This record gives sequence, structure tokens and C-alpha cells, in this order.
Amino acid sequence: MNVTARGCTQHYRTVAFDRAHNAVLLIEQRLLPHEFKIVATKNFRETAGAIRDMIVRGAGAIGATAAYGLAQGALAFPGRDLPKFRRHVEAVYQTLKSARPTAVDPVNAMNGVRAVMRAGRTVAEQQSLALAAAEEFANEDVRHCGEIGRHGAKLICSGMKILTHCNAGWLAFVDVGSATAPMYAAQAQGKKFHVFCDETRPRSQGATLTAWELAQQKVSHQIIADNAAGHLMQRGEIDLVIVGSDRTLGRTGEVANKIGTYTKAVLAQRHDIPFYVAIPLSTIDWNMKRGFDIPIEERSECEVLGAWGALTSPKSEVRSPKSAPRAYVRVANPTSRARNPGFDVTPAELITGIITPAGIFKPRELWKNRCKLGFAD
Amino acid sequence: MNVTARGCTQHYRTVAFDRAHNAVLLIEQRLLPHEFKIVATKNFRETAGAIRDMIVRGAGAIGATAAYGLAQGALAFPGRDLPKFRRHVEAVYQTLKSARPTAVDPVNAMNGVRAVMRAGRTVAEQQSLALAAAEEFANEDVRHCGEIGRHGAKLICSGMKILTHCNAGWLAFVDVGSATAPMYAAQAQGKKFHVFCDETRPRSQGATLTAWELAQQKVSHQIIADNAAGHLMQRGEIDLVIVGSDRTLGRTGEVANKIGTYTKAVLAQRHDIPFYVAIPLSTIDWNMKRGFDIPIEERSECEVLGAWGALTSPKSEVRSPKSAPRAYVRVANPTSRARNPGFDVTPAELITGIITPAGIFKPRELWKNRCKLGFAD
Repeated sequence: MNVTARGCTQHYRTVAFDRAHNAVLLIEQRLLPHEFKIVATKNFRETAGAIRDMIVRGAGAIGATAAYGLAQGALAFPGRDLPKFRRHVEAVYQTLKSARPTAVDPVNAMNGVRAVMRAGRTVAEQQSLALAAAEEFANEDVRHCGEIGRHGAKLICSGMKILTHCNAGWLAFVDVGSATAPMYAAQAQGKKFHVFCDETRPRSQGATLTAWELAQQKVSHQIIADNAAGHLMQRGEIDLVIVGSDRTLGRTGEVANKIGTYTKAVLAQRHDIPFYVAIPLSTIDWNMKRGFDIPIEERSECEVLGAWGALTSPKSEVRSPKSAPRAYVRVANPTSRARNPGFDVTPAELITGIITPAGIFKPRELWKNRCKLGFAD
Repeated sequence: MNVTARGCTQHYRTVAFDRAHNAVLLIEQRLLPHEFKIVATKNFRETAGAIRDMIVRGAGAIGATAAYGLAQGALAFPGRDLPKFRRHVEAVYQTLKSARPTAVDPVNAMNGVRAVMRAGRTVAEQQSLALAAAEEFANEDVRHCGEIGRHGAKLICSGMKILTHCNAGWLAFVDVGSATAPMYAAQAQGKKFHVFCDETRPRSQGATLTAWELAQQKVSHQIIADNAAGHLMQRGEIDLVIVGSDRTLGRTGEVANKIGTYTKAVLAQRHDIPFYVAIPLSTIDWNMKRGFDIPIEERSECEVLGAWGALTSPKSEVRSPKSAPRAYVRVANPTSRARNPGFDVTPAELITGIITPAGIFKPRELWKNRCKLGFAD
């Protein structure tokens, strides 16, 4: 999407590839929203490090980064010896895989690249196929998000007020995003609407990443405390909710997403507000039989007990990151501890529809549409 | 309640009076939870300043502070001239009243003190009656909170997990508190239970004040993000919710309280979890006919866009306030703005019961019990 940095507006992808320098280009997400910077990883080890250190995060984005990383590693191989090349590629694969050992997207993405590479008869052919496959993986991610946008934009009318939670935006994908895709598509169609971003404590991805994205695209928006959505719904100030998903159960339509998503769905149902979940096909889990079995990660207490931000005064706007170093403040009572579940599970009954690249489905109708949705029995 | 400071455990009230020095003693709440300090105001102007600058906050606490402030001002009058004394007292009254012009508690408290004073025939008698009336106001606040505790403790069994929101603790009253009173009473009865404190963004009164209180009283507790309560309820980890109230409509049973209270009530109903509101009688509004008419204060955006705390590292505990200066960090995207409604309104249908000093009532039964609840037609 477009980013305005140092007075210049330019189109960026979250993850891209620089052929001339055999480098993966990544938006350094840990500096956002206070600073915009592109990192170029010089080799596959640096690319793995960028995944591990969360310079890049989000399912689609780390999948594409791993795919490019594998191609980058393959392209760096100097000789013509195919068995040696295969061993080298295997080492690259393992390095990238171990960067985020529990994430499934890098593995799936790299398996796809490897399958394509095998058709090559020489090292040079395999190298070339690897890069083409990585590019195709990234382009497909963008196309799928574009399709989510095309289907989801039909739900948005001018004058609407839309609530979103956490960041399921283009920073979590190669471009466009999932929950944000309908907004960007509707904006491109000339529709005027307003977005409320839940700040999404404890990690504040709504206040930082989603708000930054919407500001860059000039989408009218305001940040609200997670506590405020119920009140706004009660006063008729929210017309539609769109969120993303970390894992969607294809058999039941249950959705695991950032902690607080379930609460918004319960509130939306009480107020008869449509609640949609936008997902790429890769997040559908066709195997698991009940949402209760989805493991809920218990994250670090320090996320709940404090906050990270740019050190400043409440009155000043933070325009210059140089003068506002990133800092952590302990908000909570020093002797108290915290619980910090990272995700929750929203049952199908609270979800109006699931927006996918293949169309919008009722959550309980995913299974019978599994062929359309890319599930191979 | 008991506070352990510098290795010594001692009983404190939020607001007390030092006769020997004609000073009002206040816990400096702006330094909590990182530092515990008692402020002694030397004269009624300093007392008014403490109310205005929020050294003391909370309905019961500012009421008692104003009552003591009026007595303090009266006691400082040097002569015996009754008309001059009356003019002086009037000036004291106006100064204290203007410290928080929209708050009703200081005015009600001071009107009570003035009514008692009038029985005195000399300046000395009136001075003495003023102090006695202020002491009685403070003691009644404590007695009422004790009664809330006595009634509410019956709802708490050993092994329960209780959710509370914001701070309706002893720091908001002279002592004991409202929502916390049943917990302190149950603890005194030897019951063992666990409290989840909503951090209560954007001002984090749960993470700061309530958690500090519970830690001081050695009540087992954990802080959670406001987003986490729904998930915990879904997993059967919450048995009871007790919150306070800023204003309760005697005619409808609707409750205005800190933003996010309504959300917890909606979640509690979905999970069949009892939802109680603990209130002193002074917060009942017998006149207003619908909750929708309660004005909802829109507070400063900087509360939502950032956070205040002790500057430290995420790993370290903040034990020494000297080495951890209070700071504000801007969390949100620098170019984004916020909505910040301070309160919301919970309808009667979501409230299991209202715990008052006169017993526990169904919210729609306040009106028919108005005599018991101190309403004079």
C-alpha cells in the first residue's frame, strides 16, 4: 500500500525481493508507528533472523519472507553441483523453519517453493524456479487479499462506522491485508466511512499498526480503548465489525483470533450488528473438531503490566522519532502479577459471515464449501 | 485499611483529620501504586487544591475531604464575632465547592456540616460542631462501606474467582470501599478466593489502584487486560462480578460506571455469571428517568493514545520509585486521534443485584424500597 515517508508517497509491499542485490526487503515493523524503515537482509541467515526477531510478523508476511529467503539462499549458491546444491537448500530450509518453530506458514510456503524447484534439471534452472515460485507465492497472497477486499467491500456503504480489532492489515500480509482489505477496496470505490480501531491491549496492535495503516491510506479513523466498543454500539455508533483470524475451524466455523475478539462478537450480537471475519484460505484448519481444543498461548505478563511507546509528554504530538526514544513504562502495581491469554475463540453462532478470497460464507457452511475453499480431501 | 510502607504495617484512612495541627491527612493517590505518601494540608485552600488536583478522588473520599476542609477552615477562624465567622465559613464553602465544580458529594457533605453547625450559639461551639459533623460524615462513610461488605460477603464462597473493574475500593472512600468491601469482609471471615482486576484502560485504575489495594490486604489477585474477561468467562474461570457505580438511577436500576462496565455485564449475562453493583446510598439518583440521559463525559484523547507509568525495563520489578520516574509514553500512531468516553450505562436487566448498606436489592426494586434507601419524597 502507499506510505508517505519524508514527504514522498510511494507504494510498498510488506515483503519484497531485490533481485539486483539478492536481498529480501522488509518493513521494520518493530519501529512502527513511530518510524518507517525498510530493512534489506543480505543473506538467508539475516532473513531468518528478521522472522525470528519479529521485524516481520503476520501469517502471510512471514510465509512470503520464508519463501523469498529460500530463493535467496538458493541463488547465493555458487557452483553447479546439484547434490551439493540440494544439501545447501536443505540447510537454508531448516534455518528458516527454525526461526519461528511453531508457525505453519513459513513451512507451507517453503514446501511450495521446493516442489516447484524440483522440476529444474540444473542448479541454474532450480535457482530461477525458486525465485519465480517465491514471487508467485507473494503475488498470490496479494491476489487473495484483493479478492477478500472485492467481496468484503460489498458490505460497506458510505456513512458506515466500522469497528476492527488488532491488526489484520497489509502489514500482516504481503499487501492489502484481510480485515482491512474490504475497507481499502470500498475506499477505492469512492465510499466514505469511518473506522474505530480497538487499541487492542495488551500489545496495542490496533493503536499502533492498524491506526498507522489507516492514516497512511487516509482512511477516516479513531482509536478507542477496548472498553469503549460496547458503549459506542449501545449509542448506535457502530454499523459493522470486521476482524481477522489466526485460525478458523473449517468443520465448525469457530474463529481463534486476538484476545478480545470474542467480547466484540458478543457485544455485536446483542446490538444486532453484523460481525464478519476476513481470512486468507491458509488460516483454515480442516482437521480440528472443536474450538475448545485450540491451544491458547499464555504470553508474557509484562505486556499486561506495562506499555511500550515513544517517551514524550501527554500534550505533544510525536512527530520526530529521533527525539522520542522507545521506552517501557510499568503501569501496574509493582507487586501484582498478571494473566495474559493471547487469543480467544469466537463460536460460529456469533459470526455473521466469513469473508474469503472465494466469497463470503456462513461460518457453518465452510465445510460443505471445502472444495471451493481449497481443501483437498 | 492496612498499608505496609517502609517495612511497617499500619492502618490508614484515605482521608483523616489531625486535630493537633488542624490538618487534613490524605493519601497522595497520584503517586500510587509506585509510592505511598501521606499529604497534610495546612489550611482549607490547600485542601481545596488537593481536591482540584486529584491528590484525592472518588465520591466518598472527596465528600469527606470537603467536610473536613470546611471544619478546618472554621477552626482556623481566630475571633469570636459570629457574623464575621459566618462570612468566613461561606468563603471556605465556596472555595471547596469550586475545587470540583461538577461533583455533588463535596456539596452534600458540606451542607450536612453547615446544618449541624447552625445549632452552635458561639463561634467556639460552631467550630466544635463543625469538626464533630465532619468526623461523623467520615465515620458514616466507613460504616456504610462496612455494611456493604457485610451484605456482599454472603455472595462470596471459598474457591471463587471474582472479577472487578476500575477502582471502587477504599481509596475512593474514607475506608473499606464499595466493590472491594465484600472481598475484605469475606477475607476477614477466613474465605479464600481470587480476584481478577481488569486493568481498566484508558486510565488503568484497576492495574494501579485496585491491584495496589488488594496487594496491601494480601488478597490473591491477578491483573488482566480488559480484553481477557470474555475468554476467562468462556473457560469457566470467573464465578462472580462485583463493580462500583458513579451514578445509579433509583427509578430504573440503571448503573453508570467506568467505561467497560457495560461490556462486562453483557459478557456475564451470556455466561450466567452473577453481576453485582456495590454502591453507597449517596450515588443513587432518584430524579433521572432514563439512563440514556446521563451525560457521558468525553475525556482527553491522550489517555487512550498513551500510558503513564514508572520508566523501567519490561523484565525488572519496580521496587524503588526513586529510580523509576513517572513517565508518559505515546503508544499510538502519532497522526491518529482517539474517542474517549469515560463512562457507560448498564441496564437493569444485566444486573443481578445492587449491594447497598441497607441490603441487596434487585435493580428494579430500588424505587419501591426508597424509604429504606434514604430517599425523602
